[in-house]
Amino acid sequence: MFSRVKEFFLFVGVLMLAWPSFVFSEKQVLSDSTTECIDCHITATPGIVADWRKSRMANISPAEALTKDKLSRRISADKIPEKLSGVSVGCYECHGLNSDSHKDTYEHNGFTIHTVVSPLDCATCHAAEVKEYGENIMSQAYGNLMNNPVHKMLVDEINGTPTFDGTHIGLKPHDKATDAESCLYCHGTIIEVKGTETRDTDLGEMTFPVLSGWPNQGVGRINPDGSKGSCSSCHARHQFSIKLARQPYTCSECHKGPDVPAYKVYSVSKHGNIFSSHGKEWDFNAVPWIIGEHFNSPTCATCHISLVTDADGEIIAERSHRMNDRLAHRLFGIFSTAHPKSPDTTIIKNKLGLPIPTEVTGEPVAEYLIDQEEQGRREDKMKRTCLACHSKTWVDNQFIRMHKVIAETNDKTLTATKILASAWEKGAAKGLSFKQGLKIEDSIFDETIEKMWVEQWLFFANSTRYASAMAGADYGVFANGRWYMNKNIQEMADLLESKLNTMK
Amino acid sequence: MFSRVKEFFLFVGVLMLAWPSFVFSEKQVLSDSTTECIDCHITATPGIVADWRKSRMANISPAEALTKDKLSRRISADKIPEKLSGVSVGCYECHGLNSDSHKDTYEHNGFTIHTVVSPLDCATCHAAEVKEYGENIMSQAYGNLMNNPVHKMLVDEINGTPTFDGTHIGLKPHDKATDAESCLYCHGTIIEVKGTETRDTDLGEMTFPVLSGWPNQGVGRINPDGSKGSCSSCHARHQFSIKLARQPYTCSECHKGPDVPAYKVYSVSKHGNIFSSHGKEWDFNAVPWIIGEHFNSPTCATCHISLVTDADGEIIAERSHRMNDRLAHRLFGIFSTAHPKSPDTTIIKNKLGLPIPTEVTGEPVAEYLIDQEEQGRREDKMKRTCLACHSKTWVDNQFIRMHKVIAETNDKTLTATKILASAWEKGAAKGLSFKQGLKIEDSIFDETIEKMWVEQWLFFANSTRYASAMAGADYGVFANGRWYMNKNIQEMADLLESKLNTMK
Amino acid sequence: MFSRVKEFFLFVGVLMLAWPSFVFSEKQVLSDSTTECIDCHITATPGIVADWRKSRMANISPAEALTKDKLSRRISADKIPEKLSGVSVGCYECHGLNSDSHKDTYEHNGFTIHTVVSPLDCATCHAAEVKEYGENIMSQAYGNLMNNPVHKMLVDEINGTPTFDGTHIGLKPHDKATDAESCLYCHGTIIEVKGTETRDTDLGEMTFPVLSGWPNQGVGRINPDGSKGSCSSCHARHQFSIKLARQPYTCSECHKGPDVPAYKVYSVSKHGNIFSSHGKEWDFNAVPWIIGEHFNSPTCATCHISLVTDADGEIIAERSHRMNDRLAHRLFGIFSTAHPKSPDTTIIKNKLGLPIPTEVTGEPVAEYLIDQEEQGRREDKMKRTCLACHSKTWVDNQFIRMHKVIAETNDKTLTATKILASAWEKGAAKGLSFKQGLKIEDSIFDETIEKMWVEQWLFFANSTRYASAMAGADYGVFANGRWYMNKNIQEMADLLESKLNTMK
Repeated sequence: MFSRVKEFFLFVGVLMLAWPSFVFSEKQVLSDSTTECIDCHITATPGIVADWRKSRMANISPAEALTKDKLSRRISADKIPEKLSGVSVGCYECHGLNSDSHKDTYEHNGFTIHTVVSPLDCATCHAAEVKEYGENIMSQAYGNLMNNPVHKMLVDEINGTPTFDGTHIGLKPHDKATDAESCLYCHGTIIEVKGTETRDTDLGEMTFPVLSGWPNQGVGRINPDGSKGSCSSCHARHQFSIKLARQPYTCSECHKGPDVPAYKVYSVSKHGNIFSSHGKEWDFNAVPWIIGEHFNSPTCATCHISLVTDADGEIIAERSHRMNDRLAHRLFGIFSTAHPKSPDTTIIKNKLGLPIPTEVTGEPVAEYLIDQEEQGRREDKMKRTCLACHSKTWVDNQFIRMHKVIAETNDKTLTATKILASAWEKGAAKGLSFKQGLKIEDSIFDETIEKMWVEQWLFFANSTRYASAMAGADYGVFANGRWYMNKNIQEMADLLESKLNTMK
Repeated sequence: MFSRVKEFFLFVGVLMLAWPSFVFSEKQVLSDSTTECIDCHITATPGIVADWRKSRMANISPAEALTKDKLSRRISADKIPEKLSGVSVGCYECHGLNSDSHKDTYEHNGFTIHTVVSPLDCATCHAAEVKEYGENIMSQAYGNLMNNPVHKMLVDEINGTPTFDGTHIGLKPHDKATDAESCLYCHGTIIEVKGTETRDTDLGEMTFPVLSGWPNQGVGRINPDGSKGSCSSCHARHQFSIKLARQPYTCSECHKGPDVPAYKVYSVSKHGNIFSSHGKEWDFNAVPWIIGEHFNSPTCATCHISLVTDADGEIIAERSHRMNDRLAHRLFGIFSTAHPKSPDTTIIKNKLGLPIPTEVTGEPVAEYLIDQEEQGRREDKMKRTCLACHSKTWVDNQFIRMHKVIAETNDKTLTATKILASAWEKGAAKGLSFKQGLKIEDSIFDETIEKMWVEQWLFFANSTRYASAMAGADYGVFANGRWYMNKNIQEMADLLESKLNTMK
Repeated sequence: MFSRVKEFFLFVGVLMLAWPSFVFSEKQVLSDSTTECIDCHITATPGIVADWRKSRMANISPAEALTKDKLSRRISADKIPEKLSGVSVGCYECHGLNSDSHKDTYEHNGFTIHTVVSPLDCATCHAAEVKEYGENIMSQAYGNLMNNPVHKMLVDEINGTPTFDGTHIGLKPHDKATDAESCLYCHGTIIEVKGTETRDTDLGEMTFPVLSGWPNQGVGRINPDGSKGSCSSCHARHQFSIKLARQPYTCSECHKGPDVPAYKVYSVSKHGNIFSSHGKEWDFNAVPWIIGEHFNSPTCATCHISLVTDADGEIIAERSHRMNDRLAHRLFGIFSTAHPKSPDTTIIKNKLGLPIPTEVTGEPVAEYLIDQEEQGRREDKMKRTCLACHSKTWVDNQFIRMHKVIAETNDKTLTATKILASAWEKGAAKGLSFKQGLKIEDSIFDETIEKMWVEQWLFFANSTRYASAMAGADYGVFANGRWYMNKNIQEMADLLESKLNTMK
């Protein structure tokens, strides 16, 4: 008899485990076009199809999504085009949208489709998010790097190949493909159609567009339809998962290196520790995201993007894909300043005429930066999330410390800058000329003392500021922080002295 | 019919998922005071309240906790004060305890409470743990850093801001707030009451204490009641979770940097790998913690703190919050030695009169350190846990290797020290004077060669020792270990030679 | 009434949670010998016994394993010896196998057993895997390091202890125990029987073999039966878990340092991000491993080892423990080349007579390397897995980028090599002599400029190549990649210039 009971409950267990897929498959109403896509692609690219099957988009139609109450709704368009409204969002619903504006559009087995789904395609249902993202500094990541002559000079010194002729170091220039495999992996490439190619496939001869800058999922990618960004940077691949975007691993793809070690700092913070230890129990799919109920410690998304409420539906933080909404300061930079007004930072002009938000002395170029009032507004927005778990004293004191750390790290960068300027002035290195007004007369990133200066702000000062902003302070001491700032300054001074000795 | 069956089991499933919260809420018997706290704070700080609701403390009264058998019991006090005994441990039960001894006590909506709950408050129920922790070297982390003139000199060189006058590097001193945001994040601040402030709140005007050194959860925090430490360093926030404290992420908050890379070593060890791959299946809440049943590989807590038994209740390791109980050696240090006798290491005096457990030559200052017999006792205690899964040969050989690594790394530090001493003697650097007896005549941490010497022991030798002690040997080769020790020595010798050449 | 319902379902819940262990224990049919082992060892080493109990091997007999269809089968031998066939694979079934060929065999309580279970023991059931692994370059990891005079010279410079006599740096040689605790932790030790020792145990006096090089689980371990490798490198300890071997943490034990940072690159790749965010939902135990169903993003095992199919059982990748099967290139090396033909790389001879696959100029020693055709075959095998989720254009472009990165990093290493060669030629360092034909006249790894050259290829070029191969490109910029390659070249040139100045 006991064995019968066992069998019964085993049956119950198996049934319950199997449940979600039953439920899902019943909800998948596929368009005829998508059904045809899948007919071949379930064999051609089974991984994509299976991935998509697990997605929310495969299992709910836009029409049904629109019936949710405002707080729970995941789409922001008021109206969805009729032909898309009643079916699951499948292959053709995205790859077949707005064909005329996509330069990568091509004929494929009787369908007119394009390879690169762009934010403008996603805007069909997610209009507000795409608009916000366009005002987010990340959407300009390509231009802010490549169209800024100072940043571009740094790119050249990193991606070029040094040569040695027996005495001197030269630099063999690099090409776009190298950029795509380094800086532009995160910043985004320009995807261009370079013609077509015809290939034999399992289904006979087929013609496809030839794309340069592809693959790429960088945040400032410039798409064949002219739009900027890639929603799949964070909502990756064909699950488009909010669960993925809300976990810090997503952000770590581009925010883990020594230049922007946000993830590393988070992972040694109390917040990160609680996420790592308890996060497996949390609900990363819920909308709205209820603090304390769905999660007990913030991830990157909590503070920077997500709609967060309390259990009564009181909004603690509004959803925004304009991530600078709560950022009073830009921690990243030669010197850290207030956040720039425009997401396009190439419009900034300092006294040297360069798109850098400070002068050589660290003084901010105020007209391009948000003012104190706006800084206060943004900081208050950020603090609202903190205050859901911490007292006002706690939160205010943490921000006071961060302001202090910004000032101190800027001060240390200024000392390093003075040493470098002295090297330039005394002819121990060649970069900025001080003779007839300041002018860049040679790369400011190629000599050893210049590279040390770069590490001072790009690695050590940035790391220390991130460590304070996200309360993972240990990272800002030895890991890549204060210890190295002060050591580096001493070594720069030693190197200058030694160069000057040799010149005597 | 099938659809009916589905509905029934769906109901079962939902019910079962929902179960824990039913059970919990029935067990929450709140005091009137705590009920009043929550009435406001569920709106004011919903995150804290929700966090606490999930805690064990919210869901079991001390009286019930006392009924558990000895091995399963989580509180160590024999008797609990009557008024606390029958209710859940809520807001007021902790923040309202021992008001007279807390300098941060204030009136708040008719209640007398304090902000900073201290180990002495926790001792009401967890007496043994608090006593043990007081004998743990971590409880002295503030004084061992800040009241040791050598360590304090290092803090000053890290946290001060270097200046450059065109020729020389100076040092602008730093203040306490900088310490709080760097070294003292882990070591603990002194929390002092600096007055009161009155603020407008959603509930009208209120007065709060102004605290310096707050927020902080460092292990050696000096609290407004004079006690040392912060239980929330490891049992963080309002879940006070044993699950959190037993996972290595908690320890990583302060033990991940290059000075004490315990977490990094663990994560490349076989133990760490098994935890990362299988840990999601383990029970981190069980007391006692049964080896093989609740977990299959040790975390930091297993070897250093937790009560571990086999399935028959045989004790393999006793719980102890005096974490040095199983530590024969102190791996950390200029030279690694036997563990100090007293958790307060400032009482040590070497021949230079400094609180460093060795002479300049690496010879231990034996009278302040545990003797060989005690080292053996502690090592045997540690080995008992190893022996639950490994043979005696395996374990003994691993410890033999570790002893060898301690000797070798000390030897390499000695070589680096000889180079530095030579620099000091020959005037290539200024630190220890050898003229009329050894004497510190200038900071031993400000010049480049001195900083290289610091990295030799603080980063490279420490890392190599940790890599051996926790069997994550790969970390001790290239990551931050032997490669850098030998390279650094060569570079120190080169720098000395170059400085001496210049002096000619 | 409701409370009754609750009780009932609580009972169901508990029952279902408890189920697996019921099922398992019924399937455990232990041999008499293993039963005797466990009788003592459940007390002596409870952790091992409990670990094993959770293993598949404890819960299925080889005879039953053989009944599975070919795709699902986990053992590859056609026939299993009769006495092993019908029982669970327990203590004695492995530790009692092939006693005659094991030099570590000894008498233990009436049983003839050996400590170190070797691949030849595992081959009893897993014949194909052991054969393949023997042709895998990892199985030769001991000899490829220690029997290659160039690699051995590097080991000596890392593991020896530098000395300082007031002027010069010398090197105190190290011994085998140091190798075991550093390089050989991953590469594998030689385990030798050095006699026997008699110890008092809880069960009276017992005699055990004394083993040198033990413990060790390195991939190229040389076992007392002469076989090479250790299956427990990846299928660790007594669960022998496929779930463990398939997660990247396992590989990270030896592939995380700056020399081979595969895990670090993976963890910042899109693949790694999806694994970290969604992997908790995946089935790491399933055989075959169905792409999209059991997992949605590759781990190390997916691309390099596992049997991967689609939902219809179509094979996407064959299982192979000869991991070089899909590797066209060897990314690791002074210069990266095509993969060597033989797993034993000590047979290679370049013009200097050294077992290095390139000349000093970077030119490959082609006769020892796979040709272009075989490279194409291997790359096609690798691409099949990519193509399950990505288009051909996507995949081809990614490989084109990787080929370019290999060329570029080799080019940068060549520049560094030219600087070093110049130093050797001009007497600024002593290593290769150019006088009467190229010849090593002094360690090429002891001087600072030589160590800088090592970091150029071992850390920075390798890291950049890994970053491209696994599409975690951000790692190849600042983390340990292009930035450091170019900076290091500049610093090497500076050091050479300064050395030459001093020599004037």
